[in-house]
Amino acid sequence: MDIVRPTLILNKTVCLRNIELMLNKAERHRLKFRPHFKSHQSIEIGRWFKSLGVSCITVSSVQMAEYFASDGWNDITIAFPFNQLELKQLNQLTESNRINILVDNSSVVEAIGSKLEHSTGVYIKISTGYNRAGISADSFEKIDYLLERIKQFPKLEFKGFLTHAGHTYYAKSKYEVQNIHFDAIQKMNNLKRIYKGHYPNLELSIGDTPSCSLSENFTGIDEIRPGNFVFYDLQQHENGACNIDDIALRMLCPVVSKQQSRNEIIVYGGAVHFSKDSIQNVDGKPLYGRVIIKNDNEQELLSNKSYIARLSQEHGMIRTTPRAFNLIKVGDVVEIIPVHACLTVHNMGRMVTSKGEEIIIMPRF
Amino acid sequence: MDIVRPTLILNKTVCLRNIELMLNKAERHRLKFRPHFKSHQSIEIGRWFKSLGVSCITVSSVQMAEYFASDGWNDITIAFPFNQLELKQLNQLTESNRINILVDNSSVVEAIGSKLEHSTGVYIKISTGYNRAGISADSFEKIDYLLERIKQFPKLEFKGFLTHAGHTYYAKSKYEVQNIHFDAIQKMNNLKRIYKGHYPNLELSIGDTPSCSLSENFTGIDEIRPGNFVFYDLQQHENGACNIDDIALRMLCPVVSKQQSRNEIIVYGGAVHFSKDSIQNVDGKPLYGRVIIKNDNEQELLSNKSYIARLSQEHGMIRTTPRAFNLIKVGDVVEIIPVHACLTVHNMGRMVTSKGEEIIIMPRF
Repeated sequence: MDIVRPTLILNKTVCLRNIELMLNKAERHRLKFRPHFKSHQSIEIGRWFKSLGVSCITVSSVQMAEYFASDGWNDITIAFPFNQLELKQLNQLTESNRINILVDNSSVVEAIGSKLEHSTGVYIKISTGYNRAGISADSFEKIDYLLERIKQFPKLEFKGFLTHAGHTYYAKSKYEVQNIHFDAIQKMNNLKRIYKGHYPNLELSIGDTPSCSLSENFTGIDEIRPGNFVFYDLQQHENGACNIDDIALRMLCPVVSKQQSRNEIIVYGGAVHFSKDSIQNVDGKPLYGRVIIKNDNEQELLSNKSYIARLSQEHGMIRTTPRAFNLIKVGDVVEIIPVHACLTVHNMGRMVTSKGEEIIIMPRF
Repeated sequence: MDIVRPTLILNKTVCLRNIELMLNKAERHRLKFRPHFKSHQSIEIGRWFKSLGVSCITVSSVQMAEYFASDGWNDITIAFPFNQLELKQLNQLTESNRINILVDNSSVVEAIGSKLEHSTGVYIKISTGYNRAGISADSFEKIDYLLERIKQFPKLEFKGFLTHAGHTYYAKSKYEVQNIHFDAIQKMNNLKRIYKGHYPNLELSIGDTPSCSLSENFTGIDEIRPGNFVFYDLQQHENGACNIDDIALRMLCPVVSKQQSRNEIIVYGGAVHFSKDSIQNVDGKPLYGRVIIKNDNEQELLSNKSYIARLSQEHGMIRTTPRAFNLIKVGDVVEIIPVHACLTVHNMGRMVTSKGEEIIIMPRF
């Protein structure tokens, strides 16, 4: 492969291993496995899941549901508070697919309820502490009210409660992830206890990659929807969900400039390639990627004293040590491990596998 | 126009006004106007410039030079430390176009010098304090050495010194921008004084939008290369380069959820739409966008107590006041003013003008 500009490389072996491990875990715990496809947005990678027996998926937009439905996926949860302006598109999707939507307020139910043309699954989105969308897990009055509204509309089929404990992403250790997860499944099980009298088939669905990677406790849970685990990244490494070797993505970046007085190296690879997501490095500063170089033809992961410390539109700036500075030459290609796989893949739109296959993601429009 | 998902709207009137004002300023100061096209990446918007008489441009990658060359632009500066791995592409470009590259180290000159097939303009990239790429403006020995190397290769035509005082982007006031600009042009003029004996035609090229917008002092400068001014954004508003009314972009975002207990509103519009660039709000927290709502059919720009305070992949979270909270309903479409126009345009790939024209940007690959 002739690398002349920033190129996102996917290690297919690692990616398939990540998929199989999570699938095995779901089977071991008798959980429905509904992986989130927003992380890869790729029909090709979707087929890898399908070949392993996966038949239902999660997506983050109506557009993404249309994209995967076009490749034969017909059991899809759109894990985003339903956007009522896309009712027409939803009705087209439900014509020949099993689609579940999320709601956390009655006004959207009132707005779409009588206009739904086909049976549509609905989950009530529960906030277990992430505090983004969702009804708080102890707001029983709101949940009761919403359930009553849902019941009014025969096309809406109540499926259960769904949460995304996204605060695990920012956890600083495996133990913190486990604590958040334990708290979330307790809250979810409490809802099941309260509502299963009226809704004996209600399901509990949870989602985040850190919990699904680290926990072996899924008591009462019916379904998991992790997404990021397919690639993993530095953020997941930071919260303990994966090892560096589990991260399936590398950005290859040409070295274009060296600044000896500051031990800084400029690579071709910037915000348009990586996005601007960062984690905090040990020195308290934002870290946008870690660096792997070739040293005597051996791959060497540099310590986190060498890292992408700044990104502008096309430039990445590696702050480094005098030793690493001297090992890197203008014209070299270095490998960068991304902080946030989903956004990096989205930004690039294209990956190349280590076996040379080209993988194109969903078009932006 | 039927808005059902995040849609980037370009106010063409404001955009054309921004272009004309900058063009007039360049003419008034007898500066060559070489606008940076990385901000819009659009052939259509490029033609608006052409219709006003602009004939030379700046781009940030070889790929972008190829893109605009394909639409007839034939005088292009690639304002990025030249990536020697793209030598073949450069030789193709210089076959029928006037191309200028940037260098800040001798190793790239040695690597490509004898392999250039056609005359290629070269600027020495100077750092005037932004501390990204470039030779420090007082490193005369390095500059001398680099000039000697350039002279060895007849296909390299030394054009002059080029700087990008990108630290103005983070200035907190017009005065700070002016100070940085004054410092930069002094340093550049010093270089001209020293080297014009040997290179009587050498040019000084400066780039940043804040300086070009705010200053009327361009003593000794030959060329300006601003890019962002075509749209402006909240970051430019923050440093004083523009008024809110000069910002030509708005993202229309459907409202999907309201969280009364926290006065928070969730819109469909996240990191994949806006990028994750932020500025610091008055409360010290990151601000990812400001909000315009319709109130009694009047557009109302909310104060910066209401702002996009968090972005995830597809979600934007507006932190707001009780008053504004009550004015915004699920199912509404709100307008968001982006923090960083260039990255927002890059992420979206598509804009629609207020007159209904669709504008598509350069493909990602």
